[in-house]
Amino acid sequence: MAEKSSNNNTAGKPIRCRAAIARIPGEPLVIEEVLVAAPKPREVRIKIICTSVCPVDVTFWRSEHPPAIFPRILGHEAMGVVESVGEGVHEVVEGDTVIPIFLPDCGECTDCLSAKSNLCSKLSFSISPWIGREETSRFTDINGETLYHFLFVSSFSEYTVVDIAHVTKIDPQTPPDRACLFTCGVAAGLGAACKRANVEAGTSVAIFGLGAIGLAVAEGARLCGAKKIIGVDVNPDKFEIGKKFGVTDFVNSRNCGDKPVSEIIIEMTDGGADYCFECVGSTTLVHEAYASCRKAWGKTVVLGAEPGAMLTFKSYEVLDKGKTLMGALFGGLKPKSDIPILIKRYMNKELQLDEFVTHEINFKDINKAFGLLLEGKSLRCVIWMNK
Amino acid sequence: MAEKSSNNNTAGKPIRCRAAIARIPGEPLVIEEVLVAAPKPREVRIKIICTSVCPVDVTFWRSEHPPAIFPRILGHEAMGVVESVGEGVHEVVEGDTVIPIFLPDCGECTDCLSAKSNLCSKLSFSISPWIGREETSRFTDINGETLYHFLFVSSFSEYTVVDIAHVTKIDPQTPPDRACLFTCGVAAGLGAACKRANVEAGTSVAIFGLGAIGLAVAEGARLCGAKKIIGVDVNPDKFEIGKKFGVTDFVNSRNCGDKPVSEIIIEMTDGGADYCFECVGSTTLVHEAYASCRKAWGKTVVLGAEPGAMLTFKSYEVLDKGKTLMGALFGGLKPKSDIPILIKRYMNKELQLDEFVTHEINFKDINKAFGLLLEGKSLRCVIWMNK
Repeated sequence: MAEKSSNNNTAGKPIRCRAAIARIPGEPLVIEEVLVAAPKPREVRIKIICTSVCPVDVTFWRSEHPPAIFPRILGHEAMGVVESVGEGVHEVVEGDTVIPIFLPDCGECTDCLSAKSNLCSKLSFSISPWIGREETSRFTDINGETLYHFLFVSSFSEYTVVDIAHVTKIDPQTPPDRACLFTCGVAAGLGAACKRANVEAGTSVAIFGLGAIGLAVAEGARLCGAKKIIGVDVNPDKFEIGKKFGVTDFVNSRNCGDKPVSEIIIEMTDGGADYCFECVGSTTLVHEAYASCRKAWGKTVVLGAEPGAMLTFKSYEVLDKGKTLMGALFGGLKPKSDIPILIKRYMNKELQLDEFVTHEINFKDINKAFGLLLEGKSLRCVIWMNK
Repeated sequence: MAEKSSNNNTAGKPIRCRAAIARIPGEPLVIEEVLVAAPKPREVRIKIICTSVCPVDVTFWRSEHPPAIFPRILGHEAMGVVESVGEGVHEVVEGDTVIPIFLPDCGECTDCLSAKSNLCSKLSFSISPWIGREETSRFTDINGETLYHFLFVSSFSEYTVVDIAHVTKIDPQTPPDRACLFTCGVAAGLGAACKRANVEAGTSVAIFGLGAIGLAVAEGARLCGAKKIIGVDVNPDKFEIGKKFGVTDFVNSRNCGDKPVSEIIIEMTDGGADYCFECVGSTTLVHEAYASCRKAWGKTVVLGAEPGAMLTFKSYEVLDKGKTLMGALFGGLKPKSDIPILIKRYMNKELQLDEFVTHEINFKDINKAFGLLLEGKSLRCVIWMNK
């Protein structure tokens, strides 16, 4: 087991370390020794310091159907230190503090070169079982069996190999258990409010679903100076949690009687919310969000999707109401340029993210983190690898 | 028949004049003498100088079902001079050059006071048979029968009465046969490109449908500095016409073989057009426009609608592609503030609109204008009332 930090003794060679492997759908992860190959050209091997569990990990852990695949090393929210780099990697060096991010940022294509896109054209995002640019794995178990990657990150391992397009160098002063928040849902919510929708001060915001993404939207909207931030959820406890992130009003969508939620929001905002965010991936909620949105200048931002589902809108309403509908993968954030700025805002105490970390546990207890998320008890449970 | 211009002899009294009345669906309009009541409070009686025919007039002339209604005075694109004003009207006085506009601009509500909306909350737009604020008509025929209003304008009459919310004062130097272009489709197309989508210089634009609205989008995009302006139409003659308004490339959607138009546009623009405009009101074309649009920053602007139809989009695509969909009634233009600016740009020769007027005829020949439009021979046929 590689206990010490990276050095020339490990670079270029496989590393034997612990990883939590998803072998059977829905069954507890198994911590086993694995072999993590040396990084190939344009790849980086990272020693994971801490990682957290996101609902997407849970979805792919429980799913029996492709793109779910087993055995796999899940985990995609993490922070670590560069152990070694493959040929042609100049952006980071051994010892750099980094966060791997599922969304690629190749730095070369039209999209990566444009401030207006975070959708790399060279290495498009998908639920691939491979490392990314190349359709191979860097993980094998002790018997030589291939272990599949997840979201180009696979952070439930003491070491992982990630394409340089998925690596963002960050301020080494960032607390590890906060840095990992900037790699998925929390960053997506912040980006959706602050960048994609670009919430204006004094406006009204309605957030459908107060999970980590929705709460991060609230925090982003608060930061932008929104006046009224309405949280919509089926769980009334979410209002108290929401208040910590700027939620000013709450609608329990199970308690609306015959009234659609949109009608209540239109009343609360005197005509509709200036911005509506769908943070669950429910078709019904996207429709409700669009209906809740202010005519003329209202924007509905979609942060989730339902596989195979269709969104439907009345042709006349789209024209006559003049609303805007937009998607926001990862909140529209560019991994390598926008994330370090958000981290700076966190370090400057502008962003209040500490409350997102509801639990911190040791790697050996990783299955507890899945349980906490499933029971709705945690926002983010941070897993420390060296404990 | 009131032949002379307005003066104190007519103010406050009904005016007897000629109007073209739609009495039976699809049958030629009949020019008859009618009585035009004096303007009530907040209303303006206008002597129409010239008017033009828009496809919307044709639709409501041919339709046998509500909101079509008969007998009606159609016409909603026009220019005229104020004959007299009702109580409480201070914005215009007798003799002012004005254009009536179907979209209300009350100047008092949240929307009319905001630069971001053109959707008046006080007097919402509808296909009403009445003057507007009040559910009554100002027109009767010679036998005392009520004649219905159309789009709050009813300009196929030598005199009409319009609510002050539908009146825009313009530069009296504006040629009458050009001024009426700023009241519906041509203005909508210009607004959609220049205001709603806010086309950036150097970008690519795809326009679905090269009628007057689509050609005006092209002219607006040209004015904004778009580099590639692709016109899509089933009529190949439209390319030559389109070139006059800035169209640089043409796709005959009937000649695409098995390829969807979107695939061709994606190839032509190396990934999708930065802006797509649907100018026909076809659900299929909205879907095609959305598919033709560049991921991440692409905007699809909807300028028409199909009654009762639904627009459907894949949930995943909305999220993953990050495109924007927006409606633009009247191109997002505010009748009283944006239109005078566009007219100024026309007077400064920045905007090239002359080619929109393909025909000019006398009022007595008004039915010819309908024929020309139906045969696809005219973009706009201007009808002079005093000839």
